[in-house]
Amino acid sequence: MLVYTIAEVRQKVREWKKAGLTIGLVPTMGALHDGHKSLITKSVSKCDKTIVSVFVNPIQFCAGEDLDKYPRTLNADNELCEQNGVDIVFAPSAKEMYGDDYTISHDYLTYVIPPSSYVNKLCGKSRIGHFDGVCTVVNKLFNIAEPDYAFFGEKDRQQLIVLQKMVKDLNIPLQIIPCPTVREESGLALSSRNKYLSAEDKENALALSKILFHIKDCYNNGVTDIKSLSAVADIYLNESHALEYLDFRDSDDLTEKQVADNKTIVFIALKIGDVRLIDNLALKD
Amino acid sequence: MLVYTIAEVRQKVREWKKAGLTIGLVPTMGALHDGHKSLITKSVSKCDKTIVSVFVNPIQFCAGEDLDKYPRTLNADNELCEQNGVDIVFAPSAKEMYGDDYTISHDYLTYVIPPSSYVNKLCGKSRIGHFDGVCTVVNKLFNIAEPDYAFFGEKDRQQLIVLQKMVKDLNIPLQIIPCPTVREESGLALSSRNKYLSAEDKENALALSKILFHIKDCYNNGVTDIKSLSAVADIYLNESHALEYLDFRDSDDLTEKQVADNKTIVFIALKIGDVRLIDNLALKD
Repeated sequence: MLVYTIAEVRQKVREWKKAGLTIGLVPTMGALHDGHKSLITKSVSKCDKTIVSVFVNPIQFCAGEDLDKYPRTLNADNELCEQNGVDIVFAPSAKEMYGDDYTISHDYLTYVIPPSSYVNKLCGKSRIGHFDGVCTVVNKLFNIAEPDYAFFGEKDRQQLIVLQKMVKDLNIPLQIIPCPTVREESGLALSSRNKYLSAEDKENALALSKILFHIKDCYNNGVTDIKSLSAVADIYLNESHALEYLDFRDSDDLTEKQVADNKTIVFIALKIGDVRLIDNLALKD
Repeated sequence: MLVYTIAEVRQKVREWKKAGLTIGLVPTMGALHDGHKSLITKSVSKCDKTIVSVFVNPIQFCAGEDLDKYPRTLNADNELCEQNGVDIVFAPSAKEMYGDDYTISHDYLTYVIPPSSYVNKLCGKSRIGHFDGVCTVVNKLFNIAEPDYAFFGEKDRQQLIVLQKMVKDLNIPLQIIPCPTVREESGLALSSRNKYLSAEDKENALALSKILFHIKDCYNNGVTDIKSLSAVADIYLNESHALEYLDFRDSDDLTEKQVADNKTIVFIALKIGDVRLIDNLALKD
Protein backbone atom coordinates (compact mmCIF):
# COMPACT_ATOMS: atom_id res chain seq x y z
CA MET A 1 0.00 0.00 0.00
CA LEU A 2 1.48 3.31 -1.11
CA VAL A 3 0.92 6.01 1.52
CA TYR A 4 1.87 9.68 1.35
CA THR A 5 0.88 11.06 4.75
CA ILE A 6 2.15 10.66 8.29
CA ALA A 7 -1.43 10.40 9.56
CA GLU A 8 -2.14 7.32 7.42
CA VAL A 9 1.00 5.57 8.65
CA ARG A 10 0.15 6.39 12.27
CA GLN A 11 -3.36 5.01 11.89
CA LYS A 12 -2.11 1.68 10.56
CA VAL A 13 0.64 1.54 13.21
CA ARG A 14 -1.92 2.08 15.98
CA GLU A 15 -4.10 -0.73 14.60
CA TRP A 16 -1.12 -3.09 14.39
CA LYS A 17 0.11 -2.24 17.90
CA LYS A 18 -3.35 -2.82 19.28
CA ALA A 19 -3.33 -6.27 17.67
CA GLY A 20 0.06 -6.98 19.26
CA LEU A 21 1.92 -7.17 15.94
CA THR A 22 5.63 -6.38 15.55
CA ILE A 23 6.73 -3.72 13.06
CA GLY A 24 9.87 -3.55 10.93
CA LEU A 25 11.03 -0.32 9.29
CA VAL A 26 13.35 -0.11 6.29
CA PRO A 27 14.27 3.57 5.71
CA THR A 28 15.42 4.24 2.13
CA MET A 29 15.84 7.05 -0.37
CA GLY A 30 14.25 4.87 -3.05
CA ALA A 31 15.92 3.75 -6.29
CA LEU A 32 15.68 0.33 -4.70
CA HIS A 33 18.13 -2.40 -5.71
CA ASP A 34 18.97 -5.90 -4.47
CA GLY A 35 20.75 -4.38 -1.46
CA HIS A 36 17.49 -2.81 -0.29
CA LYS A 37 15.67 -6.00 -1.23
CA SER A 38 17.82 -7.97 1.20
CA LEU A 39 16.85 -5.53 4.01
CA ILE A 40 13.19 -5.83 3.05
CA THR A 41 13.32 -9.62 2.95
CA LYS A 42 14.93 -9.68 6.40
CA SER A 43 12.27 -7.38 7.83
CA VAL A 44 9.38 -9.29 6.26
CA SER A 45 10.68 -12.58 7.64
CA LYS A 46 11.41 -11.16 11.14
CA CYS A 47 8.40 -8.86 11.68
CA ASP A 48 4.63 -9.18 11.37
CA LYS A 49 4.40 -5.93 9.41
CA THR A 50 6.97 -4.09 7.32
CA ILE A 51 7.07 -0.40 6.42
CA VAL A 52 9.50 0.82 3.74
CA SER A 53 10.00 4.57 3.64
CA VAL A 54 11.02 6.12 0.33
CA PHE A 55 12.13 9.69 0.92
CA VAL A 56 14.97 11.62 -0.69
CA ASN A 57 15.74 13.62 2.43
CA PRO A 58 16.78 17.15 1.45
CA ILE A 59 18.42 17.98 4.79
CA GLN A 60 21.06 15.27 4.45
CA PHE A 61 22.38 16.60 1.13
CA CYS A 62 25.13 19.17 1.37
CA ALA A 63 25.69 22.14 -0.89
CA GLY A 64 26.80 21.00 -4.34
CA GLU A 65 25.59 17.42 -3.84
CA ASP A 66 23.24 15.42 -6.08
CA LEU A 67 19.85 16.18 -4.44
CA ASP A 68 18.19 17.22 -7.69
CA LYS A 69 19.56 14.45 -9.87
CA TYR A 70 19.31 11.69 -7.23
CA PRO A 71 17.41 8.83 -8.98
CA ARG A 72 13.66 8.76 -8.22
CA THR A 73 11.82 5.58 -9.31
CA LEU A 74 8.77 5.41 -7.03
CA ASN A 75 6.62 3.19 -9.26
CA ALA A 76 9.32 0.55 -9.61
CA ASP A 77 10.14 0.86 -5.89
CA ASN A 78 6.52 0.33 -4.95
CA GLU A 79 6.29 -2.70 -7.22
CA LEU A 80 9.43 -4.27 -5.73
CA CYS A 81 7.98 -3.70 -2.24
CA GLU A 82 4.61 -5.21 -3.10
CA GLN A 83 6.23 -8.26 -4.64
CA ASN A 84 8.26 -8.79 -1.49
CA GLY A 85 5.51 -8.60 1.10
CA VAL A 86 5.86 -5.01 2.30
CA ASP A 87 2.72 -3.70 4.04
CA ILE A 88 3.25 0.04 3.65
CA VAL A 89 5.43 2.06 1.29
CA PHE A 90 5.62 5.49 2.90
CA ALA A 91 6.60 8.14 0.34
CA PRO A 92 6.03 11.56 1.91
CA SER A 93 6.75 14.91 0.28
CA ALA A 94 9.37 17.23 1.80
CA LYS A 95 6.45 19.43 2.86
CA GLU A 96 4.80 16.52 4.69
CA MET A 97 8.04 15.83 6.56
CA TYR A 98 9.24 19.37 7.27
CA GLY A 99 6.12 21.50 7.22
CA ASP A 100 4.55 24.15 5.09
CA ASP A 101 7.18 26.77 5.46
CA TYR A 102 10.09 24.42 5.79
CA THR A 103 13.55 25.82 5.53
CA ILE A 104 16.58 23.59 5.89
CA SER A 105 18.04 25.49 8.78
CA HIS A 106 19.08 25.06 12.38
CA ASP A 107 17.33 28.40 12.98
CA TYR A 108 13.84 26.97 12.50
CA LEU A 109 14.02 23.19 12.87
CA THR A 110 14.79 20.88 15.79
CA TYR A 111 17.74 18.66 14.84
CA VAL A 112 19.14 15.44 16.22
CA ILE A 113 22.90 15.89 16.24
CA PRO A 114 25.26 12.90 16.52
CA PRO A 115 28.47 13.26 18.54
CA SER A 116 31.23 15.07 16.66
CA SER A 117 33.74 12.30 17.41
CA TYR A 118 31.59 9.99 15.26
CA VAL A 119 31.11 12.35 12.33
CA ASN A 120 34.29 14.44 12.01
CA LYS A 121 35.90 11.66 9.97
CA LEU A 122 35.30 9.42 6.95
CA CYS A 123 32.27 10.68 4.98
CA GLY A 124 31.36 13.23 7.66
CA LYS A 125 34.60 15.10 7.02
CA SER A 126 33.65 16.12 3.50
CA ARG A 127 29.85 15.97 3.93
CA ILE A 128 29.39 18.65 6.59
CA GLY A 129 25.98 18.35 8.26
CA HIS A 130 25.12 15.13 6.38
CA PHE A 131 24.74 12.97 9.48
CA ASP A 132 22.74 15.69 11.28
CA GLY A 133 20.23 15.35 8.46
CA VAL A 134 20.34 11.55 8.57
CA CYS A 135 19.83 11.35 12.35
CA THR A 136 17.03 13.92 12.25
CA VAL A 137 15.05 12.23 9.49
CA VAL A 138 15.57 8.71 10.86
CA ASN A 139 14.50 9.92 14.33
CA LYS A 140 11.34 11.33 12.71
CA LEU A 141 10.69 8.07 10.84
CA PHE A 142 11.15 6.13 14.09
CA ASN A 143 8.56 8.35 15.78
CA ILE A 144 6.14 7.97 12.87
CA ALA A 145 6.45 4.20 12.34
CA GLU A 146 7.28 3.21 15.95
CA PRO A 147 9.05 0.06 14.75
CA ASP A 148 10.35 -2.76 16.93
CA TYR A 149 13.18 -3.30 14.46
CA ALA A 150 14.85 -1.01 11.93
CA PHE A 151 17.03 -2.38 9.13
CA PHE A 152 20.14 -0.62 7.78
CA GLY A 153 22.82 -1.82 5.37
CA GLU A 154 26.45 -2.23 6.36
CA LYS A 155 27.26 -0.61 3.01
CA ASP A 156 26.75 2.76 4.76
CA ARG A 157 28.58 1.65 7.87
CA GLN A 158 29.39 5.07 9.32
CA GLN A 159 25.67 5.85 9.07
CA LEU A 160 24.85 2.52 10.75
CA ILE A 161 27.25 3.17 13.64
CA VAL A 162 26.04 6.77 14.07
CA LEU A 163 22.40 5.57 14.17
CA GLN A 164 23.21 2.80 16.66
CA LYS A 165 24.80 5.48 18.85
CA MET A 166 21.68 7.66 18.50
CA VAL A 167 19.42 4.78 19.54
CA LYS A 168 21.62 4.10 22.58
CA ASP A 169 22.09 7.74 23.62
CA LEU A 170 18.42 8.69 23.26
CA ASN A 171 17.07 5.38 24.63
CA ILE A 172 14.97 4.82 21.52
CA PRO A 173 12.86 1.71 22.16
CA LEU A 174 13.82 -0.38 19.14
CA GLN A 175 16.62 -2.54 17.83
CA ILE A 176 18.72 -1.76 14.78
CA ILE A 177 19.44 -4.80 12.60
CA PRO A 178 22.60 -4.40 10.49
CA CYS A 179 22.41 -6.14 7.10
CA PRO A 180 25.44 -7.29 5.06
CA THR A 181 26.44 -5.41 1.93
CA VAL A 182 25.13 -6.98 -1.25
CA ARG A 183 27.67 -7.13 -4.10
CA GLU A 184 27.65 -7.83 -7.80
CA GLU A 185 29.61 -10.92 -8.80
CA SER A 186 32.45 -8.57 -9.69
CA GLY A 187 32.63 -7.49 -6.04
CA LEU A 188 31.13 -4.02 -6.62
CA ALA A 189 28.86 -3.06 -3.72
CA LEU A 190 25.33 -2.22 -4.84
CA SER A 191 24.43 1.46 -4.58
CA SER A 192 21.77 3.66 -6.07
CA ARG A 193 24.59 5.92 -7.20
CA ASN A 194 26.02 3.13 -9.43
CA LYS A 195 23.42 4.33 -11.95
CA TYR A 196 25.64 7.36 -12.56
CA LEU A 197 28.52 5.14 -13.77
CA SER A 198 29.47 4.56 -17.43
CA ALA A 199 30.70 1.10 -18.42
CA GLU A 200 34.29 2.30 -18.12
CA ASP A 201 33.60 3.96 -14.76
CA LYS A 202 32.12 0.72 -13.52
CA GLU A 203 35.27 -1.16 -14.45
CA ASN A 204 37.32 1.40 -12.51
CA ALA A 205 34.88 1.18 -9.59
CA LEU A 206 36.01 -2.39 -8.96
CA ALA A 207 39.11 -0.92 -7.31
CA LEU A 208 37.14 -0.31 -4.09
CA SER A 209 36.18 -3.90 -3.39
CA LYS A 210 39.45 -5.26 -4.76
CA ILE A 211 41.45 -3.12 -2.33
CA LEU A 212 39.24 -4.10 0.60
CA PHE A 213 39.29 -7.83 -0.07
CA HIS A 214 43.03 -7.81 -0.75
CA ILE A 215 43.64 -6.01 2.57
CA LYS A 216 41.48 -8.58 4.33
CA ASP A 217 43.52 -11.36 2.77
CA CYS A 218 46.73 -9.75 4.00
CA TYR A 219 45.27 -9.40 7.50
CA ASN A 220 44.23 -13.06 7.51
CA ASN A 221 47.82 -13.87 6.55
CA GLY A 222 49.10 -12.09 9.62
CA VAL A 223 49.74 -8.51 8.46
CA THR A 224 48.44 -6.01 11.07
CA ASP A 225 50.62 -2.98 10.32
CA ILE A 226 48.36 -0.22 8.97
CA LYS A 227 51.03 1.24 6.68
CA SER A 228 51.65 -2.11 5.00
CA LEU A 229 47.94 -2.81 4.66
CA SER A 230 47.30 0.66 3.21
CA ALA A 231 49.99 0.11 0.58
CA VAL A 232 47.71 -2.45 -1.06
CA ALA A 233 45.70 0.44 -2.50
CA ASP A 234 48.58 1.44 -4.80
CA ILE A 235 48.16 -1.80 -6.72
CA TYR A 236 44.65 -0.91 -7.85
CA LEU A 237 44.48 2.89 -8.06
CA ASN A 238 45.09 4.64 -11.36
CA GLU A 239 44.68 8.16 -12.74
CA SER A 240 40.87 7.68 -13.00
CA HIS A 241 40.58 7.45 -9.21
CA ALA A 242 40.63 10.34 -6.72
CA LEU A 243 41.07 8.64 -3.35
CA GLU A 244 39.27 10.50 -0.55
CA TYR A 245 40.17 8.19 2.30
CA LEU A 246 41.34 4.68 3.16
CA ASP A 247 40.86 4.39 6.93
CA PHE A 248 41.14 1.64 9.55
CA ARG A 249 38.62 2.22 12.36
CA ASP A 250 36.97 0.59 15.34
CA SER A 251 33.62 -1.07 14.62
CA ASP A 252 31.96 0.43 17.73
CA ASP A 253 33.05 4.05 17.92
CA LEU A 254 35.08 4.70 14.74
CA THR A 255 38.27 5.58 16.60
CA GLU A 256 41.38 5.16 14.46
CA LYS A 257 43.26 1.86 14.71
CA GLN A 258 47.03 1.97 15.20
CA VAL A 259 47.22 -1.79 14.54
CA ALA A 260 44.60 -3.87 12.73
CA ASP A 261 42.61 -6.28 14.88
CA ASN A 262 39.37 -8.25 14.82
CA LYS A 263 37.32 -5.13 15.59
CA THR A 264 38.76 -3.22 12.64
CA ILE A 265 36.70 -2.00 9.72
CA VAL A 266 38.47 -0.76 6.60
CA PHE A 267 36.69 2.19 4.98
CA ILE A 268 37.31 3.53 1.51
CA ALA A 269 35.88 6.45 -0.49
CA LEU A 270 36.94 7.60 -3.90
CA LYS A 271 35.68 9.63 -6.79
CA ILE A 272 35.53 8.46 -10.38
CA GLY A 273 34.80 11.55 -12.41
CA ASP A 274 31.91 13.23 -10.61
CA VAL A 275 30.68 10.07 -8.90
CA ARG A 276 31.67 9.50 -5.28
CA LEU A 277 31.65 5.84 -4.21
CA ILE A 278 32.16 4.30 -0.76
CA ASP A 279 32.69 0.79 0.52
CA ASN A 280 33.93 -0.90 3.70
CA LEU A 281 34.84 -4.33 5.02
CA ALA A 282 35.26 -5.91 8.43
CA LEU A 283 38.65 -7.61 8.72
CA LYS A 284 37.27 -10.35 10.96
CA ASP A 285 35.58 -13.20 9.06
CA MET B 1 6.80 2.75 43.44
CA LEU B 2 10.30 4.24 43.45
CA VAL B 3 12.34 2.96 40.49
CA TYR B 4 15.97 3.69 39.66
CA THR B 5 16.56 1.90 36.36
CA ILE B 6 15.40 2.42 32.79
CA ALA B 7 14.81 -1.33 32.43
CA GLU B 8 12.27 -1.37 35.27
CA VAL B 9 10.33 1.54 33.78
CA ARG B 10 10.32 -0.10 30.35
CA GLN B 11 9.01 -3.36 31.79
CA LYS B 12 6.07 -1.64 33.48
CA VAL B 13 5.39 0.47 30.39
CA ARG B 14 5.26 -2.64 28.20
CA GLU B 15 2.78 -4.28 30.59
CA TRP B 16 0.58 -1.20 30.63
CA LYS B 17 0.66 -0.80 26.84
CA LYS B 18 -0.27 -4.44 26.42
CA ALA B 19 -3.27 -3.85 28.69
CA GLY B 20 -4.28 -0.83 26.56
CA LEU B 21 -3.71 1.69 29.35
CA THR B 22 -2.78 5.34 28.74
CA ILE B 23 0.38 6.77 30.29
CA GLY B 24 1.07 10.27 31.58
CA LEU B 25 4.60 11.56 32.19
CA VAL B 26 5.52 14.44 34.50
CA PRO B 27 9.24 15.22 34.06
CA THR B 28 10.70 17.07 37.07
CA MET B 29 14.01 17.84 38.75
CA GLY B 30 12.43 17.01 42.12
CA ALA B 31 12.10 19.38 45.09
CA LEU B 32 8.42 19.04 44.34
CA HIS B 33 6.00 21.82 45.34
CA ASP B 34 2.35 22.59 44.72
CA GLY B 35 3.18 23.59 41.14
CA HIS B 36 4.40 20.07 40.41
CA LYS B 37 1.49 18.70 42.39
CA SER B 38 -0.95 20.39 40.02
CA LEU B 39 0.78 18.69 37.05
CA ILE B 40 0.65 15.35 38.83
CA THR B 41 -3.03 15.75 39.70
CA LYS B 42 -3.81 16.58 36.09
CA SER B 43 -1.94 13.53 34.82
CA VAL B 44 -3.50 11.17 37.35
CA SER B 45 -6.98 12.36 36.45
CA LYS B 46 -6.36 12.22 32.67
CA CYS B 47 -4.30 9.02 32.33
CA ASP B 48 -4.60 5.44 33.53
CA LYS B 49 -1.00 5.42 34.75
CA THR B 50 1.31 8.26 35.77
CA ILE B 51 5.11 8.31 35.83
CA VAL B 52 6.93 11.18 37.58
CA SER B 53 10.61 11.44 36.77
CA VAL B 54 12.88 13.05 39.36
CA PHE B 55 16.24 13.79 37.80
CA VAL B 56 18.51 16.78 38.26
CA ASN B 57 19.80 16.72 34.70
CA PRO B 58 23.47 17.73 34.66
CA ILE B 59 23.57 18.56 30.95
CA GLN B 60 21.03 21.38 31.26
CA PHE B 61 23.08 23.28 33.83
CA CYS B 62 25.57 25.76 32.45
CA ALA B 63 28.99 26.58 33.86
CA GLY B 64 28.65 28.48 37.13
CA GLU B 65 25.04 27.42 37.68
CA ASP B 66 23.56 25.73 40.75
CA LEU B 67 23.87 22.03 39.79
CA ASP B 68 25.59 21.03 43.03
CA LYS B 69 23.38 23.02 45.38
CA TYR B 70 20.11 22.38 43.52
CA PRO B 71 17.68 21.09 46.21
CA ARG B 72 17.37 17.29 46.35
CA THR B 73 14.49 15.92 48.46
CA LEU B 74 13.77 12.48 47.01
CA ASN B 75 12.07 10.99 50.08
CA ALA B 76 9.63 13.87 50.37
CA ASP B 77 9.12 13.86 46.59
CA ASN B 78 8.33 10.17 46.60
CA GLU B 79 5.88 10.62 49.48
CA LEU B 80 4.07 13.45 47.68
CA CYS B 81 3.81 11.28 44.57
CA GLU B 82 2.48 8.26 46.47
CA GLN B 83 -0.13 10.36 48.22
CA ASN B 84 -1.30 11.70 44.87
CA GLY B 85 -1.75 8.47 42.98
CA VAL B 86 1.50 8.31 40.99
CA ASP B 87 2.33 4.80 39.77
CA ILE B 88 6.09 5.15 39.23
CA VAL B 89 8.61 7.65 40.54
CA PHE B 90 11.60 7.27 38.24
CA ALA B 91 14.76 8.60 39.90
CA PRO B 92 17.75 7.50 37.80
CA SER B 93 21.39 8.33 38.48
CA ALA B 94 23.37 10.41 35.96
CA LYS B 95 25.23 7.20 35.13
CA GLU B 96 21.95 5.40 34.39
CA MET B 97 20.91 8.20 32.02
CA TYR B 98 24.23 9.00 30.33
CA GLY B 99 26.25 5.81 30.62
CA ASP B 100 29.32 4.58 32.42
CA ASP B 101 31.83 6.90 30.93
CA TYR B 102 29.50 9.83 30.46
CA THR B 103 30.98 13.16 29.63
CA ILE B 104 28.78 16.18 29.10
CA SER B 105 30.00 16.87 25.62
CA HIS B 106 28.81 17.14 22.06
CA ASP B 107 31.91 15.10 21.18
CA TYR B 108 30.57 11.89 22.72
CA LEU B 109 26.80 12.23 23.11
CA THR B 110 23.91 12.51 20.66
CA TYR B 111 21.99 15.73 21.39
CA VAL B 112 18.56 17.00 20.43
CA ILE B 113 19.05 20.64 19.49
CA PRO B 114 16.11 23.05 19.34
CA PRO B 115 16.07 25.75 16.63
CA SER B 116 18.29 28.69 17.42
CA SER B 117 15.46 31.17 16.75
CA TYR B 118 13.65 29.67 19.76
CA VAL B 119 16.58 29.68 22.16
CA ASN B 120 18.75 32.70 21.31
CA LYS B 121 16.50 34.90 23.48
CA LEU B 122 14.98 35.09 26.96
CA CYS B 123 16.60 32.49 29.24
CA GLY B 124 18.49 30.86 26.38
CA LYS B 125 20.50 34.03 25.85
CA SER B 126 22.26 33.80 29.19
CA ARG B 127 21.96 30.02 29.66
CA ILE B 128 23.99 28.82 26.65
CA GLY B 129 23.26 25.16 25.89
CA HIS B 130 20.54 24.94 28.55
CA PHE B 131 17.74 24.04 26.15
CA ASP B 132 19.96 21.53 24.29
CA GLY B 133 20.22 19.71 27.61
CA VAL B 134 16.49 20.04 28.28
CA CYS B 135 15.45 18.73 24.85
CA THR B 136 17.93 15.87 25.02
CA VAL B 137 16.86 14.64 28.45
CA VAL B 138 13.14 15.08 27.76
CA ASN B 139 13.52 13.22 24.47
CA LYS B 140 15.21 10.39 26.39
CA LEU B 141 12.45 10.36 29.01
CA PHE B 142 9.83 10.26 26.23
CA ASN B 143 11.59 7.22 24.72
CA ILE B 144 11.81 5.51 28.12
CA ALA B 145 8.27 6.15 29.35
CA GLU B 146 6.51 6.25 25.94
CA PRO B 147 3.74 8.44 27.35
CA ASP B 148 0.52 9.41 25.61
CA TYR B 149 0.58 12.74 27.45
CA ALA B 150 3.41 14.77 28.99
CA PHE B 151 2.73 17.58 31.46
CA PHE B 152 4.77 20.78 31.68
CA GLY B 153 4.21 23.98 33.63
CA GLU B 154 3.62 27.34 31.97
CA LYS B 155 5.98 28.74 34.62
CA ASP B 156 8.86 27.65 32.36
CA ARG B 157 7.12 28.83 29.24
CA GLN B 158 10.13 29.10 26.93
CA GLN B 159 10.90 25.49 27.83
CA LEU B 160 7.27 24.54 27.14
CA ILE B 161 7.30 26.22 23.71
CA VAL B 162 10.69 24.72 22.81
CA LEU B 163 9.45 21.24 23.77
CA GLN B 164 6.21 21.67 21.81
CA LYS B 165 8.35 22.59 18.82
CA MET B 166 10.51 19.47 19.38
CA VAL B 167 7.44 17.24 19.50
CA LYS B 168 6.15 18.77 16.27
CA ASP B 169 9.47 18.78 14.40
CA LEU B 170 10.42 15.22 15.34
CA ASN B 171 6.86 13.82 15.04
CA ILE B 172 6.98 12.47 18.59
CA PRO B 173 3.76 10.47 19.10
CA LEU B 174 2.41 12.18 22.22
CA GLN B 175 0.61 15.33 23.30
CA ILE B 176 2.10 17.97 25.57
CA ILE B 177 -0.36 19.33 28.12
CA PRO B 178 0.52 22.84 29.35
CA CYS B 179 -0.41 23.49 32.99
CA PRO B 180 -1.05 26.95 34.51
CA THR B 181 1.50 28.48 36.86
CA VAL B 182 0.66 27.98 40.53
CA ARG B 183 1.17 31.07 42.69
CA GLU B 184 1.34 31.89 46.37
CA GLU B 185 -1.44 34.20 47.53
CA SER B 186 1.12 37.02 47.26
CA GLY B 187 1.36 36.35 43.51
CA LEU B 188 4.85 34.78 43.66
CA ALA B 189 5.10 31.88 41.20
CA LEU B 190 6.10 28.64 42.88
CA SER B 191 9.63 27.48 42.04
CA SER B 192 12.07 25.04 43.57
CA ARG B 193 14.57 27.87 43.55
CA ASN B 194 12.38 29.92 45.93
CA LYS B 195 14.06 27.85 48.66
CA TYR B 196 17.18 29.96 48.10
CA LEU B 197 15.33 33.17 49.07
CA SER B 198 15.60 34.92 52.47
CA ALA B 199 12.48 36.56 53.92
CA GLU B 200 13.64 39.91 52.54
CA ASP B 201 14.47 38.41 49.13
CA LYS B 202 11.03 36.90 49.00
CA GLU B 203 9.45 40.31 49.58
CA ASN B 204 11.54 41.71 46.72
CA ALA B 205 10.63 38.73 44.54
CA LEU B 206 7.03 39.94 44.44
CA ALA B 207 8.15 42.51 41.87
CA LEU B 208 8.00 39.86 39.13
CA SER B 209 4.34 39.00 39.44
CA LYS B 210 3.35 42.58 40.30
CA ILE B 211 4.93 43.87 37.10
CA LEU B 212 3.28 41.14 34.99
CA PHE B 213 -0.20 41.59 36.42
CA HIS B 214 0.03 45.37 36.23
CA ILE B 215 1.05 45.14 32.56
CA LYS B 216 -1.87 42.81 31.90
CA ASP B 217 -4.23 45.32 33.54
CA CYS B 218 -2.89 48.08 31.31
CA TYR B 219 -3.34 45.87 28.22
CA ASN B 220 -6.91 45.11 29.24
CA ASN B 221 -7.44 48.86 29.52
CA GLY B 222 -6.35 49.33 25.92
CA VAL B 223 -2.60 49.97 26.13
CA THR B 224 -0.76 48.00 23.40
CA ASP B 225 2.39 50.08 22.99
CA ILE B 226 5.34 47.98 24.18
CA LYS B 227 7.32 50.96 25.45
CA SER B 228 4.44 52.16 27.62
CA LEU B 229 3.77 48.66 28.93
CA SER B 230 7.47 48.13 29.70
CA ALA B 231 7.57 51.35 31.72
CA VAL B 232 5.39 49.64 34.34
CA ALA B 233 8.51 47.81 35.55
CA ASP B 234 10.04 51.04 36.88
CA ILE B 235 7.30 51.26 39.49
CA TYR B 236 8.37 48.02 41.18
CA LEU B 237 12.10 47.66 40.59
CA ASN B 238 14.58 48.84 43.23
CA GLU B 239 18.31 48.51 43.86
CA SER B 240 17.83 44.89 45.05
CA HIS B 241 16.75 43.82 41.56
CA ALA B 242 19.00 43.13 38.57
CA LEU B 243 16.62 42.95 35.63
CA GLU B 244 17.77 40.47 32.99
CA TYR B 245 14.91 40.89 30.55
CA LEU B 246 11.32 42.08 30.21
CA ASP B 247 10.17 40.82 26.82
CA PHE B 248 6.91 40.71 24.83
CA ARG B 249 6.82 37.64 22.62
CA ASP B 250 4.56 35.47 20.49
CA SER B 251 3.02 32.48 22.27
CA ASP B 252 3.78 30.09 19.37
CA ASP B 253 7.29 30.87 18.18
CA LEU B 254 8.65 33.49 20.61
CA THR B 255 9.15 36.15 17.94
CA GLU B 256 9.26 39.66 19.37
CA LYS B 257 6.02 41.67 19.43
CA GLN B 258 6.05 45.22 18.08
CA VAL B 259 2.55 45.80 19.47
CA ALA B 260 0.90 43.77 22.24
CA ASP B 261 -1.98 41.51 21.15
CA ASN B 262 -3.93 38.48 22.34
CA LYS B 263 -1.10 36.14 21.39
CA THR B 264 1.44 38.04 23.48
CA ILE B 265 3.25 36.57 26.45
CA VAL B 266 5.18 38.90 28.76
CA PHE B 267 8.41 37.32 30.04
CA ILE B 268 10.50 38.57 32.94
CA ALA B 269 13.77 37.42 34.53
CA LEU B 270 15.66 39.12 37.31
CA LYS B 271 18.28 38.38 39.90
CA ILE B 272 17.92 39.08 43.60
CA GLY B 273 21.38 38.58 45.02
CA ASP B 274 22.57 35.27 43.59
CA VAL B 275 19.09 33.93 42.92
CA ARG B 276 17.73 34.15 39.38
CA LEU B 277 13.94 34.13 39.13
CA ILE B 278 11.67 33.99 36.10
CA ASP B 279 7.96 34.46 35.49
CA ASN B 280 5.63 35.10 32.56
CA LEU B 281 2.01 35.92 31.83
CA ALA B 282 -0.28 35.70 28.82
CA LEU B 283 -1.96 39.06 28.15
CA LYS B 284 -5.17 37.39 26.95
CA ASP B 285 -7.54 36.33 29.72
